[in-house]
Amino acid sequence: MATTLIRGGTVVTATGRSLADVLIDGETIRAVLAPGSELLGVDLAASVDRVIDATGKYVIPGGIDAHTHMELPFGGTAASDTFETGTRAAAWGGTTTIVDFAVQTYGQRVEDGLAAWHEKAAGSCAIDYGFHQIVGDVDEASLAALRGLADEGISSYKLFMAYPGVFYSDDAQILQAMQVAADTGLMTMMHAENGPAIDVLVRQLLEQGKRDPYFHGVARAWQMEEEATHRAIMLAHLTNAPLYVVHVSAKQAVAQLAAARDTGQNVFGETCPQYLYLSLEEQLGASSDEWGAFEGAKWVCSTPLRSKHEHHSDELWSALRTNDLQMVSTDHCPFCMKDQKELGRGDFSKIPNGIGGVEHRMDLLYQGVVDGQISLERWVEITATTPARMFGLYGRKGVIQAGADADIVVYDPKGHTSIGVGRTHHMNMDHSAWEGFEIDGHVDTVLSRGRVIVDDAQYLGRPGDGSFVKRGLSQYLV
Amino acid sequence: MATTLIRGGTVVTATGRSLADVLIDGETIRAVLAPGSELLGVDLAASVDRVIDATGKYVIPGGIDAHTHMELPFGGTAASDTFETGTRAAAWGGTTTIVDFAVQTYGQRVEDGLAAWHEKAAGSCAIDYGFHQIVGDVDEASLAALRGLADEGISSYKLFMAYPGVFYSDDAQILQAMQVAADTGLMTMMHAENGPAIDVLVRQLLEQGKRDPYFHGVARAWQMEEEATHRAIMLAHLTNAPLYVVHVSAKQAVAQLAAARDTGQNVFGETCPQYLYLSLEEQLGASSDEWGAFEGAKWVCSTPLRSKHEHHSDELWSALRTNDLQMVSTDHCPFCMKDQKELGRGDFSKIPNGIGGVEHRMDLLYQGVVDGQISLERWVEITATTPARMFGLYGRKGVIQAGADADIVVYDPKGHTSIGVGRTHHMNMDHSAWEGFEIDGHVDTVLSRGRVIVDDAQYLGRPGDGSFVKRGLSQYLV
Amino acid sequence: MATTLIRGGTVVTATGRSLADVLIDGETIRAVLAPGSELLGVDLAASVDRVIDATGKYVIPGGIDAHTHMELPFGGTAASDTFETGTRAAAWGGTTTIVDFAVQTYGQRVEDGLAAWHEKAAGSCAIDYGFHQIVGDVDEASLAALRGLADEGISSYKLFMAYPGVFYSDDAQILQAMQVAADTGLMTMMHAENGPAIDVLVRQLLEQGKRDPYFHGVARAWQMEEEATHRAIMLAHLTNAPLYVVHVSAKQAVAQLAAARDTGQNVFGETCPQYLYLSLEEQLGASSDEWGAFEGAKWVCSTPLRSKHEHHSDELWSALRTNDLQMVSTDHCPFCMKDQKELGRGDFSKIPNGIGGVEHRMDLLYQGVVDGQISLERWVEITATTPARMFGLYGRKGVIQAGADADIVVYDPKGHTSIGVGRTHHMNMDHSAWEGFEIDGHVDTVLSRGRVIVDDAQYLGRPGDGSFVKRGLSQYLV
Amino acid sequence: MATTLIRGGTVVTATGRSLADVLIDGETIRAVLAPGSELLGVDLAASVDRVIDATGKYVIPGGIDAHTHMELPFGGTAASDTFETGTRAAAWGGTTTIVDFAVQTYGQRVEDGLAAWHEKAAGSCAIDYGFHQIVGDVDEASLAALRGLADEGISSYKLFMAYPGVFYSDDAQILQAMQVAADTGLMTMMHAENGPAIDVLVRQLLEQGKRDPYFHGVARAWQMEEEATHRAIMLAHLTNAPLYVVHVSAKQAVAQLAAARDTGQNVFGETCPQYLYLSLEEQLGASSDEWGAFEGAKWVCSTPLRSKHEHHSDELWSALRTNDLQMVSTDHCPFCMKDQKELGRGDFSKIPNGIGGVEHRMDLLYQGVVDGQISLERWVEITATTPARMFGLYGRKGVIQAGADADIVVYDPKGHTSIGVGRTHHMNMDHSAWEGFEIDGHVDTVLSRGRVIVDDAQYLGRPGDGSFVKRGLSQYLV
Repeated sequence: MATTLIRGGTVVTATGRSLADVLIDGETIRAVLAPGSELLGVDLAASVDRVIDATGKYVIPGGIDAHTHMELPFGGTAASDTFETGTRAAAWGGTTTIVDFAVQTYGQRVEDGLAAWHEKAAGSCAIDYGFHQIVGDVDEASLAALRGLADEGISSYKLFMAYPGVFYSDDAQILQAMQVAADTGLMTMMHAENGPAIDVLVRQLLEQGKRDPYFHGVARAWQMEEEATHRAIMLAHLTNAPLYVVHVSAKQAVAQLAAARDTGQNVFGETCPQYLYLSLEEQLGASSDEWGAFEGAKWVCSTPLRSKHEHHSDELWSALRTNDLQMVSTDHCPFCMKDQKELGRGDFSKIPNGIGGVEHRMDLLYQGVVDGQISLERWVEITATTPARMFGLYGRKGVIQAGADADIVVYDPKGHTSIGVGRTHHMNMDHSAWEGFEIDGHVDTVLSRGRVIVDDAQYLGRPGDGSFVKRGLSQYLV
Repeated sequence: MATTLIRGGTVVTATGRSLADVLIDGETIRAVLAPGSELLGVDLAASVDRVIDATGKYVIPGGIDAHTHMELPFGGTAASDTFETGTRAAAWGGTTTIVDFAVQTYGQRVEDGLAAWHEKAAGSCAIDYGFHQIVGDVDEASLAALRGLADEGISSYKLFMAYPGVFYSDDAQILQAMQVAADTGLMTMMHAENGPAIDVLVRQLLEQGKRDPYFHGVARAWQMEEEATHRAIMLAHLTNAPLYVVHVSAKQAVAQLAAARDTGQNVFGETCPQYLYLSLEEQLGASSDEWGAFEGAKWVCSTPLRSKHEHHSDELWSALRTNDLQMVSTDHCPFCMKDQKELGRGDFSKIPNGIGGVEHRMDLLYQGVVDGQISLERWVEITATTPARMFGLYGRKGVIQAGADADIVVYDPKGHTSIGVGRTHHMNMDHSAWEGFEIDGHVDTVLSRGRVIVDDAQYLGRPGDGSFVKRGLSQYLV
Repeated sequence: MATTLIRGGTVVTATGRSLADVLIDGETIRAVLAPGSELLGVDLAASVDRVIDATGKYVIPGGIDAHTHMELPFGGTAASDTFETGTRAAAWGGTTTIVDFAVQTYGQRVEDGLAAWHEKAAGSCAIDYGFHQIVGDVDEASLAALRGLADEGISSYKLFMAYPGVFYSDDAQILQAMQVAADTGLMTMMHAENGPAIDVLVRQLLEQGKRDPYFHGVARAWQMEEEATHRAIMLAHLTNAPLYVVHVSAKQAVAQLAAARDTGQNVFGETCPQYLYLSLEEQLGASSDEWGAFEGAKWVCSTPLRSKHEHHSDELWSALRTNDLQMVSTDHCPFCMKDQKELGRGDFSKIPNGIGGVEHRMDLLYQGVVDGQISLERWVEITATTPARMFGLYGRKGVIQAGADADIVVYDPKGHTSIGVGRTHHMNMDHSAWEGFEIDGHVDTVLSRGRVIVDDAQYLGRPGDGSFVKRGLSQYLV
Repeated sequence: MATTLIRGGTVVTATGRSLADVLIDGETIRAVLAPGSELLGVDLAASVDRVIDATGKYVIPGGIDAHTHMELPFGGTAASDTFETGTRAAAWGGTTTIVDFAVQTYGQRVEDGLAAWHEKAAGSCAIDYGFHQIVGDVDEASLAALRGLADEGISSYKLFMAYPGVFYSDDAQILQAMQVAADTGLMTMMHAENGPAIDVLVRQLLEQGKRDPYFHGVARAWQMEEEATHRAIMLAHLTNAPLYVVHVSAKQAVAQLAAARDTGQNVFGETCPQYLYLSLEEQLGASSDEWGAFEGAKWVCSTPLRSKHEHHSDELWSALRTNDLQMVSTDHCPFCMKDQKELGRGDFSKIPNGIGGVEHRMDLLYQGVVDGQISLERWVEITATTPARMFGLYGRKGVIQAGADADIVVYDPKGHTSIGVGRTHHMNMDHSAWEGFEIDGHVDTVLSRGRVIVDDAQYLGRPGDGSFVKRGLSQYLV
């Protein structure tokens, strides 16, 4: 097994930073050492197979993106990134683990849904991956299947309060699933939007001829997110199930989460880079020769972008600082404009929902450090350490620590990254929701289980490098 | 410099635990290593001067008690622990750093107060120590002196909204001090009780003949703590100064802190073991042949113990879990019953305020782990890691990490500790507020900067082992 | 037209009380006069047909019970009071107007439902009556019908978030109905309990063999009321529709209403005497030779009685004082034990839901005055004035005022009322939920549109005295 | 005694409106009658001495301004309106009762302060008046004097948390006064601003050369009002004293009041027209040839006007609608620019604090009805009925009701009022804070105890018409 020494860098953890060297032995971190060329009489650099100089750079745990949707069938098409292209893009951006969503569709067995996703991912991935289980049809068989999930290394499942007729669960279904979750320790992940009510608003807007992408965000009013968030919290309260609300975008939903946490309830929330940086006004103002007002379709996602006039982003950053939101995932769900997003031309409700971002999360949030929104430590915490703890990966992932997988990023605070198609852009999309964003930092080197897979702007890995990781129960509960 | 290997234990940090060995070189941690007898060809055990077997035990950062009052003059007497006796007791209990309070009294120069405390502590301490600065007389000279404190390694100062005529600062004084704090980065620590109003209640109770210790707690009503906490928060909001409220005991004060944090304000709170485990009813019910109802004087402290019928303790534990309270200190301020507490016989207002506990904090909070109140990681966080971050010690203290001071405790979860005079009791007190408490764990070995000072129930250190540590600015702000 | 002078009493309004005489001319109040035997040279007493001496008594507007269910088909039976028996009982208790609920059942036209209720009530009632419209099947036709309701004198309609398969509306239906309400000014009344989730709990309890009446209250957990209340508020916020939540019993639901009101939203809540005085423990403890534990069925209603250990009643009284709850209705829905409640023997879910109380509301709430829970003025306000304003009757009803209908009660604070079968009990029920309650006051005389219908413990009216009153839009909105 | 009939108008009360005639006999209302020329055979119009035609107009209770400062010594000068000029201006504007403040200054006896104010007012007033008692020196003698106040018809007293060295009470003083208030039933009125902290900010601003009137508002930051409001609430909570916070201007202070009320505490708040309509930006933008930037002095009052960018006014209106604020007074405290306000030229802290408005309150708030901010009923409630109930005048004042004083305003909704010097302006001021305001309504006729004192834009009264009214305890408590 090869040995590697990452030398001279600043190791950053969730609680602090220190000058330290990292000794890797094979796939795992053997030791974290105070600087010094010699140890107990051994010349360290001379004794290892490879030395990586991290002087002046940050040595951080590889990012964990706990919310991606590779190859997800949606709205008559499928997310444009395969596990191969999507995980490779992730690696480029310093993410070394994704947790994707296996899907049980209506009428299907949970086990079959999971098996299908294993098949898609096996042998394709550039980095390690796990699965959450989407339960699209909560019935007796599904509830029974939930009880077996943890043994499969699937310690979390997701329900939807939105999308009636597709993934939607009603409150009776949610309640029963949460009872099983409380019993087994599974984490309940929730897409919290009041789908039935939203669908009324969608229909009414379309009938009024309001058919541009912008109206997607109008229909999905913040009240519908706030309401569903509160409802999920109360059902979790009743059942004593831990709850994790995905892609929180409305400040009022954050307030619901904060209030529940103030009472001691095990309630968590994630937001995504798009809600921190973009606004509904992107869609209102977007226009191009090629697409006209339909240009706004690039930013159609659910929950939707919110109006900047309501200052949601400020509250989301604040909640990230105070831990009322615990982490940031991407909800990476890429669709090309051509052939995919354009399915919704003339009817915003037919635009496949999703933004691609798995490649840029680490950079975009590092920019938050530069901008003074979060500390360097909090950056590591919300992108790696907490995702690992939240979803049962900690110890192997999410931390620079002896014994952990050597999933490591060397990040250069003096580097620079320009985001956009034709620049950094390895996702399989014909556009970028982040076109033109400039980042005051750069992912220099990425190691996945001890192997250097990105270095000096070269991709050195190959499909199948990444393995499925069984996850344990959440290590984050209070 | 001697080398030591702590082998086979479970290293616990604020975010997780792992089987790991700790290699100490002189006063600092040289490396944290994944288990394995050999490293790059070196036989580790054979290469070090000493091996400590921690198999089956926790290896944790030495405790940091950020609130002690050794030798504090108060009410015509002085706290009964000297820096020598108090820090030795701390060491026995697994605490390897205290931050005590230098006092500027009314009419005195801040610099002179600080110098006096340096003199008391120098050469006496068993463990490392730092100082906060009490400012008892906020005037132009004091404000100027505050500006120089950080250079002295004193990055925090304390004001009192209680004790008119002694330490009391009025709102005009607080405002000005906070302005300096906001400017310099000093942390403002606040004793938050409405002293002038409390003094009215005290006088009225005494006039009514209600003179037993119990009435100390009656006079110091929760409204007076809640109010002062809110006032301190608003003054901090106006000045943009970070605020740390000491010895929070009322759930309503916690609610004020939580509400302020929900808005993103840099507001923090500490509680103490006495508020987590004891109640006002200790005082009401206490009686002995020797002291009669005056027995309750043992638990006279400010803020006071609260009524168990109001469920404050439950809320304090909950707030510790949700990080609405960030850490636990002891407010160690010991007075003997004989000659000291008894000064207040017949007049509760003359009882010296304070409970001794520096020796028992680590054990008492570990019992919280056993009882399911907090996780093992949170135990480490609230007793060591956060105190270090909060008060500018992190990196040297508060974490098991390469490069840090080798302040380490080997804690045995299968051990047992019986608290009480004549059992474990090294504090210079003729009684214990914790008499009879049984702990399902034990401090086995304590290292201070690489030296074993407690081992196998033997104290191996001597006065002067501990040094003054200059602290930097808080590393905890958001 | 006959003239009547009510002389010597204390007229009570929502804002105060005064010694005043009331001159009635035919069906309406002609004048309210300062005491004095003569007016502009006329001897008042000598000039009227009848003089009622109210010396030492309160002269108050007749009660308005805005929530009754006479003859309501439910669970395979029907409420045991007809419009004739129920309104007569109301009159006995000082209530001179009811607003009952016309029902549109699933598959029926709203207009037909309303017509059926007109038919039931016409010619039967002892006192005036109006209707709210229950919409049990929100579809395009119902929404169109809602638009015409105000012209029929029906200015409010009710939806159910409970009772799937019976009256239940889903959120899409609620949203659409509220849009019509916002447009037309109709008041939306809401039964706020999460029915689908409750039905899961009901089924599970039955499967566990928990079949006694007590478990009705266990299944309908407070979280389910709080949740639905919040959801209704958010849907009302989105649509800008005024909202009135019926039969609030959980303090947490009150908190939701209070929070919404603090933001200025037009949200209102009613509670009922049973939630102010009775608790879930009635059901737990109830047992009789005849019925055994099934005795508890007498108090099966939805929302259910709440546990006294959670102190809901205290919060309800407090909310009545602070106007976070605006009024008190009975939700009078009587079922006999024999043949009716007993349908649920062995299966609590089959017990017809409802408590009878239309006769006792004025007395029970007057006891709140005696007990110091509310002021005399607030008694009048929550039983008559606000109901009139809330539901578009003010001016004709709810106030002692020149020009208003002479619906007047002379209430004797020195009288006494013993509630129970065989004592005061004119409801058509074989038991009383209020058996044994003693009231420190008494309804002496009741006038309905100028006619004395109850006097000196004699009923002087006859079926058909009461007429349908068309109601206008709510006069209470802010 | 003369009789008067006000005929054909719409009588408005706090709960509704009705077409009704008002029969006045001497100083009091003898009857309120449904329209009709004849009563029990008597031709009403023919039988009275005077008939006032109110057709198409509102007949409302005369306004009660519960917060005025006639002839108040302040800052080396005195409020420019005497009781004669100030009450006459009030009458012009439809206010028929004021409650002014008798002042106990430091070192003075409360009784002497009260006597001095009786002397100032006796024989001078155009309308009835009462007094609150300012206690500027809370000591044993003052506390004893408070116990006798109610017998003098003074049922409320006021303390200041602002103005150290002038009216300021510290928390020990407040606590003791509130204890007496809880005991006697007196209402505690509070000027809630943190004076000691504000004085620091004032001094600092002046030292920085920020000396224009605008900086008055900068120094008196909203945090200082919010804080003091909370503190007053907690002291009231501890003592169980009812609390009435005067001149609330910050939305955050409103939130504190609302939160306290949600818990059922007897806490009330008044705001003033200036906070509803004007903003700090008046002062920032104000400039004139004569005064330059000192023009802003016209709007210097405490609490100060708040920034319109923070949307305080919207929240104040909302709180008036939801009863989180109960009433509106003027805090009428007029100073001329010449010789008075100009004392603060070059030093904003020397500008006498106060705005004149006793003349315009009824009109300005009626404009709120026109603008849709409040209902017609709420206008009457917050300007007359609640002030009467709050301060123990109800029954005699604040309502159109048989037996009440005939203090009545005939208000024409089709009239118009232009506010400004040289137009309507009867206050003794050389400017108006309300210059240029246009009101869509008009005070046509004003009766004070049965006498017409303003009619057809003529003043018909004379000094001494008004008498001192003894007030009872508050009738508003819950």
